[in-house]
Amino acid sequence: MPDRPVRHFEGELEGLKVRLLEMGGLAEDRLQAAVEALVSRDLASLDRVLAGDDPINRLHIEIDSRCCRLLALHQPMAVDLRAIVSAVKINTDLERVGDLAVNIAEAARRYLRHPPVKELIDIPRMARLAQTMLRDALDAYVQRDTAAAERVLREDDELDGLKTQVFRELLTYMLQDPRTIEPALDLILISRHLERIGDHATNVAEDVIFMVSARDVRHHTGEAQ
Amino acid sequence: MPDRPVRHFEGELEGLKVRLLEMGGLAEDRLQAAVEALVSRDLASLDRVLAGDDPINRLHIEIDSRCCRLLALHQPMAVDLRAIVSAVKINTDLERVGDLAVNIAEAARRYLRHPPVKELIDIPRMARLAQTMLRDALDAYVQRDTAAAERVLREDDELDGLKTQVFRELLTYMLQDPRTIEPALDLILISRHLERIGDHATNVAEDVIFMVSARDVRHHTGEAQ
Repeated sequence: MPDRPVRHFEGELEGLKVRLLEMGGLAEDRLQAAVEALVSRDLASLDRVLAGDDPINRLHIEIDSRCCRLLALHQPMAVDLRAIVSAVKINTDLERVGDLAVNIAEAARRYLRHPPVKELIDIPRMARLAQTMLRDALDAYVQRDTAAAERVLREDDELDGLKTQVFRELLTYMLQDPRTIEPALDLILISRHLERIGDHATNVAEDVIFMVSARDVRHHTGEAQ
Repeated sequence: MPDRPVRHFEGELEGLKVRLLEMGGLAEDRLQAAVEALVSRDLASLDRVLAGDDPINRLHIEIDSRCCRLLALHQPMAVDLRAIVSAVKINTDLERVGDLAVNIAEAARRYLRHPPVKELIDIPRMARLAQTMLRDALDAYVQRDTAAAERVLREDDELDGLKTQVFRELLTYMLQDPRTIEPALDLILISRHLERIGDHATNVAEDVIFMVSARDVRHHTGEAQ
């Protein structure tokens, strides 16, 4: 007898996962577009990033109401309950990643008013790493794969290392030539935004571990910076 | 007949509110301690902020499990359901505020290795404003008061204005005297951390409006920076 509502619930949960992956894809695309536009000094692309957060914002609201509906109609328990509570949090993290892509585009726009400070190597590398972490964390959510989630936590250390490297290098430029101060500041801010995207991927990975094992790892790993 | 479970639910919801207020109080105290220690150049206090995030982390985990238990046992609907989903999000926001207090203390520790760049006026002002926003947003949650939540959204513009002012002033110092570059960078980072605390207060206020009126204001206000 309870077969139909159960199947219905499973279907809705699948729908929720699909939406979260779609949200993650949009956030990733926006991050990639912002950093590619920075590297290629493409103002028109930056403006598209700045103007284009409607789809992600709409999806953010839709996923939240899906979660509320699932909780209200199906009264899920244990791992299913935790999966939906996690979805609420992951949804917030992904929306913030979208906001950070906007922040990157804003800083990039200011940066492009100046001649290039240096060839950009580490910032695109940070962006690729943050993007991979985000994708891996979401896959771990969909597959309920804690081993994959643990890998994301380790990748965050690499991203932090790159951030420190970027900072030191830019500081040297600023000290040597005051004309680089203003643009270098924007590159430092961009590297911080990328690091925060890594933090959001880390949050997602921690939620996956909590969801699957009901084990809370959030305050045993290194502190978010 | 359903009187007892209902009363039981109300009691648990009250307990949740008390815990969230306690969490907010801890986050506020840590923010205040970090900024006061920066202003008074008190290394020992900074170290206490850096070492003292256990209580907030424990409470973070406890509030999350309270929310899951409330959802599982009482299957709340409508505004009560939204109150608990909002509590999950607010809990995350408050934990991030605690992390940001640590980030401020870390930057302050680096800042204190150098002679003062300037008298600190706007940064303590930003801290007080962020703290007020946080407290007002949590009060609005407890009272389910959307008018108070709307006021928090307006205060965020003032905080953004202060951040821009701090940035411009410090940039002038950096351009005039390269010895100020390194410490001024840390002050800029601190002002960004304070601005992010304001963003978290804004998130809480938006959750209150969503909880009370089921109206989603998140993507009609200015974008989070």
